[in-house]
Amino acid sequence: MPITVVGSIAYDAVKTPFGERERMLGGAAVHFALAASFFEQVRVVGPVGDDFGEAELEVLRGRGVDVSDVERIPGGETFFWRGEYGWDLNSRETLDTKLGVFEGFAPKLSSESRSSDVLFLANIQPDLQREVRAQLPDARFVALDSMNLWIDIARDSLVAAIKSVDCVILNDAELRQLTGKANLFSAAREVLSWGPRVIVAKQGEYGAALVTAESFFSLPAFPLENVVDPTGAGDTFAGGFVGYIAQQLRSEELSDELLRAAMAHGTALASFNVEEFGTERIERLARAEIVARLEELREITRFSSDG
Amino acid sequence: MPITVVGSIAYDAVKTPFGERERMLGGAAVHFALAASFFEQVRVVGPVGDDFGEAELEVLRGRGVDVSDVERIPGGETFFWRGEYGWDLNSRETLDTKLGVFEGFAPKLSSESRSSDVLFLANIQPDLQREVRAQLPDARFVALDSMNLWIDIARDSLVAAIKSVDCVILNDAELRQLTGKANLFSAAREVLSWGPRVIVAKQGEYGAALVTAESFFSLPAFPLENVVDPTGAGDTFAGGFVGYIAQQLRSEELSDELLRAAMAHGTALASFNVEEFGTERIERLARAEIVARLEELREITRFSSDG
Repeated sequence: MPITVVGSIAYDAVKTPFGERERMLGGAAVHFALAASFFEQVRVVGPVGDDFGEAELEVLRGRGVDVSDVERIPGGETFFWRGEYGWDLNSRETLDTKLGVFEGFAPKLSSESRSSDVLFLANIQPDLQREVRAQLPDARFVALDSMNLWIDIARDSLVAAIKSVDCVILNDAELRQLTGKANLFSAAREVLSWGPRVIVAKQGEYGAALVTAESFFSLPAFPLENVVDPTGAGDTFAGGFVGYIAQQLRSEELSDELLRAAMAHGTALASFNVEEFGTERIERLARAEIVARLEELREITRFSSDG
Repeated sequence: MPITVVGSIAYDAVKTPFGERERMLGGAAVHFALAASFFEQVRVVGPVGDDFGEAELEVLRGRGVDVSDVERIPGGETFFWRGEYGWDLNSRETLDTKLGVFEGFAPKLSSESRSSDVLFLANIQPDLQREVRAQLPDARFVALDSMNLWIDIARDSLVAAIKSVDCVILNDAELRQLTGKANLFSAAREVLSWGPRVIVAKQGEYGAALVTAESFFSLPAFPLENVVDPTGAGDTFAGGFVGYIAQQLRSEELSDELLRAAMAHGTALASFNVEEFGTERIERLARAEIVARLEELREITRFSSDG
C-alpha cells in the first residue's frame, strides 16, 4: 500500500572520525523514503530551495520515489544541518541548523499523496504533523517520529499529534522525557494509554524495542565493526519498519508477528545506512543484501535454553 | 562440575528511589554464588570480619553453598559499600567504601576449592585474581570480571590476568576503556586476540552481548516495570551464566549453543535480582520461576522475517 512521508529534505555537512562530507543529500524524509522504497511506492512531501539539485532529486527518482510533492520554493534555501560525531558515535554535536524553506512551510498534498494508505510523519513541528494527519483521515497505518526540541517547546501539540496516530517511533530517552517515567516499559505503556497501538523505542547502538498492549519485543542492532556515519539511521530504521508494514498490509492484517518482522527489516536497513556517509550505502543497496542481513540478524539472536 | 568463586563478601548500604537498606548482605562473590547455586555446587573464597553475622552465612548455606573457605579475620571488619541510585537506575554514586578485611587479603584455598573444575574470579585486585588462577591450573573453564578502577591503576596486571582465563565478563564501557576501541565489536575482538575464547559485554538495562572468534550473540535484558535495586545484577548474571555452563560441562563440551543458553540463564537470574533489594529476591527464588522467565525471554526475542 502506497506510503506518504512528510518531513525534511536537506543538505547535511557531517564530520566523523572516519571522514567528512561538506554538502550531501540528507533529511528525515529522504532517508525514510529511500529505505521504504525497497518495499512500497513512496510519495515525499516537503520543501526545497532554489539550490536543491536535480542530481539529488534523481537519487530519489532512481529508487522509484514519487517526488511530485517536493515543493520548490522560489528564492528559498534548502534546509541545512551541520554536525560532528566524536569517537563515541552515539553522541553528536549540532554545529549549525539553517531552517531555510522550513520557516513558514505549509504542507501541500496532492490528491495522490492524500490517497496513500500509510503515512509517516517524520520529525517536524507537531502542528504540521497534525495538519497532514487530518488530510489522510482514512489511512490504515500512521506512524510519527519527533524529537526532544518539540517535547520542550510544543509538548501539548505533540501529545495531540500522538493521540491521532497508530504508532510512535521515538528514541528511548525521548520516551522517558515525554512521559517523565524513568522506566522504559512504564514510559511506553503511558504513551499506549494515550491512543497509539504501537510504540517503538529506538536505542541507538543497542537496537530497538517494540511495545504493544499485548506484547514486548526487543531486537539488538546489527553488530558492525565499520560504523562510518550514523546520520539518518533512525529515519532509515523507520523507512524499513513502516515500508515493510505497508507492503504486508496488502495481504494481511496488522499483527504482532508482522510488527516483529518489520522491526527486523528496519534494523537491517539501518545497519546498511551507517556503513557509509549519508545516503551513499542505501543508494546502491540490493534486495539480496537485505535478505542476507535478515538471515544474519536471526543468527545473532537465536538461542535455545531447554538444557 | 563444582565452581569456586573468589571475591568480595560485603555489607551494602543502598538507597534507591524505591527505598533503602542500611546494612544488607552483598558482595560480588555472594551474588554470584547465590545465582550459580541453582545449577551447581559453589565454593566461596573470601574474607569477612568479626562483625559478619551467622544469619548472613546461613543465607549462603541455605542455598547449599560451601562456606568453609570464607575466612573470618579476627579483629577485622567486613567490606562495606554505600551507594545511591537516582531515577536513572543505570548510574549510581558510591558514597563510601571501607575495604576492611580486604586490605592485605591473601586468598587461602582449601584442597576442595582447588579441585573445582570451574573458577570465577570476581572483581578484585588483578594480582589476587592471578594468584588464585595459578592454584587451579587444571580448571576446565575460568571466567573473570573486573572494573574501571583496575584498568586505571593496574592495567598490566589485569591484562596478564585476562590472558590466563577462558572468558572475560565486563561492562561494555569497560571493554572500550580497556582496549581504547570505541566500537564494541572491535574491542571484544581485541581482547579475544589476547587469549580468552569468550567475551561477554554487559550492557546494563540493554542486556548483554557474547563475542567469540566464530560467533556474535546479543540478548536484551528482561523488560521489567519494577526495578528496585540494580546492585549485584552483574554478578548475578555471571552466576547464572557460569553456573549453567558448569552444570552442562558435566555432559557436553563448551559450544556456541551452550554459551548462548548460558547467556539466557544469566539474563533470567539478573532480572530477578533487581526486583528487590540486595539478595532478597534470589534468596526465595524457585527453580520453576527461572524456567518460566526463560520461556518469556524466548517469547520477547522471537521473530520471523520471511515475509
